[in-house]
Amino acid sequence: MTISIIGLGLIGGSFAKDLRAAGLASELLGTDASPEHARRALELGLVDRTIPLEEAQRLSDVILLAVPVDAIALLLPRVLDAVRPEQTVIDLGSTKFQLAESVRQHPNRERYVAAHPMAGTENAGPDAALAGLFKGKTVLLCDLEWSAPDACKTALELFHAVGLKFEFMSSEQHDRHAAYVSHLSHVAAYALSLAVQNEEKAGYAVPRLAGGGFASTVRLAKSSPEMWVPIFKQNREHVLKAIDAFDERLQEFKRCLEANDYARLETLIREANQIRDLL
Amino acid sequence: MTISIIGLGLIGGSFAKDLRAAGLASELLGTDASPEHARRALELGLVDRTIPLEEAQRLSDVILLAVPVDAIALLLPRVLDAVRPEQTVIDLGSTKFQLAESVRQHPNRERYVAAHPMAGTENAGPDAALAGLFKGKTVLLCDLEWSAPDACKTALELFHAVGLKFEFMSSEQHDRHAAYVSHLSHVAAYALSLAVQNEEKAGYAVPRLAGGGFASTVRLAKSSPEMWVPIFKQNREHVLKAIDAFDERLQEFKRCLEANDYARLETLIREANQIRDLL
Repeated sequence: MTISIIGLGLIGGSFAKDLRAAGLASELLGTDASPEHARRALELGLVDRTIPLEEAQRLSDVILLAVPVDAIALLLPRVLDAVRPEQTVIDLGSTKFQLAESVRQHPNRERYVAAHPMAGTENAGPDAALAGLFKGKTVLLCDLEWSAPDACKTALELFHAVGLKFEFMSSEQHDRHAAYVSHLSHVAAYALSLAVQNEEKAGYAVPRLAGGGFASTVRLAKSSPEMWVPIFKQNREHVLKAIDAFDERLQEFKRCLEANDYARLETLIREANQIRDLL
Repeated sequence: MTISIIGLGLIGGSFAKDLRAAGLASELLGTDASPEHARRALELGLVDRTIPLEEAQRLSDVILLAVPVDAIALLLPRVLDAVRPEQTVIDLGSTKFQLAESVRQHPNRERYVAAHPMAGTENAGPDAALAGLFKGKTVLLCDLEWSAPDACKTALELFHAVGLKFEFMSSEQHDRHAAYVSHLSHVAAYALSLAVQNEEKAGYAVPRLAGGGFASTVRLAKSSPEMWVPIFKQNREHVLKAIDAFDERLQEFKRCLEANDYARLETLIREANQIRDLL
């Protein structure tokens, strides 16, 4: 089948690599808003050709939307306007509810499958594309009751080919879940980065003298605003609640230290340790 | 030379492995407060013999203290009481100022070298010992002006043998630095773990459906209270300040979202991104 990938960055590029390796695409077409990224994606052999979106859609069996979520919100209705009954449109964005609502009444809604592969790195652009990025990870498939059975089947076939496991939920559940296990991690990493940088400027903290623990905790702070501002915007309500819940636990830690209550601090840490059993 | 390692967990055990690999120790002696850990360390071949601390110290050229920082605070004065002029005592703890103050007036202070290798994992006990853990990492050496030149030389020789790079600072500087680049990361990870677990209990967040980003950010939340409560206790003042600085940035994120100020949010994220250049 002919597959179009709209957005040739980390996620789109990694899909391109794995779909090619799986031998699933007879032709891989690509589109990127940045001419430089499009050129680089070709250079890296991620896709066979880069062509404008309308042409790519016309020639494809499957259209994968792998652009930032604000761009998905703009493109999806347009793509659905032009979609043919045998085509499948899949978005790979990190937020789902607003998007779901925006196309709920679209006459071609059933050609669309909402998906969020829970995999990524802090890097962006075609050079960030990583073979095997999705292997063993999970793709969250949302509101499948609104998608045509054959579109679901095509999407599952693609995701299975790149090694993703499936989970099914509503777009509303998705956004609340993602606020905690993905979006909040980014907020925490950004705040940690800013706090440490401030201290570094004061001449005290020296990030390059840190161990692997700091690097691990702060890693997501390298993620780009182009991708993340639209995510926070679209999932604003849930992210705000998640920040409050996080801050509440932070304040609990603070109160233990202020009150020299080390028995309570130990209890908190023991509870936190239980994340071992949940991962 | 004969080297004693007091505490055969992650740090002590990893040192044992690397010192043995470097061929620096004619004999490696070990002590652990837990008979089970001592037995397991022997089973794993981390040390040649496990014997009581007093006997280990009597037989050794170098005594490495690799126990939690509250135990270091108890043991160090005792070890210095019995130390001979040709012996070197090194602690590997994560906090330094209180310890430095507690032995500042000790008649044998100069036999002691204060060190903090900035390396570790979230695991504990002899089975967590990892060959090569210190390679390319940095050891922070504190207040070396209070240590005898030959003791410094011995310590540097050992640290060099396991692949550590050196940095020198006062114990006061150390504790402020460590509060930001190590201790705060742990607080953030613990709070993240607790917030997500709470949401998981409510049936919404599902940690096992998270991607690598969450795993990376929350990893340190697996670290044990036995090691971390004493660190927070001994570095209370700096950790409290670091939590406040972190919370300030978190609130800034929150205000941006509340006010729908996405231009400001983008600026914050761009600033946070600069951690790339500092690692």
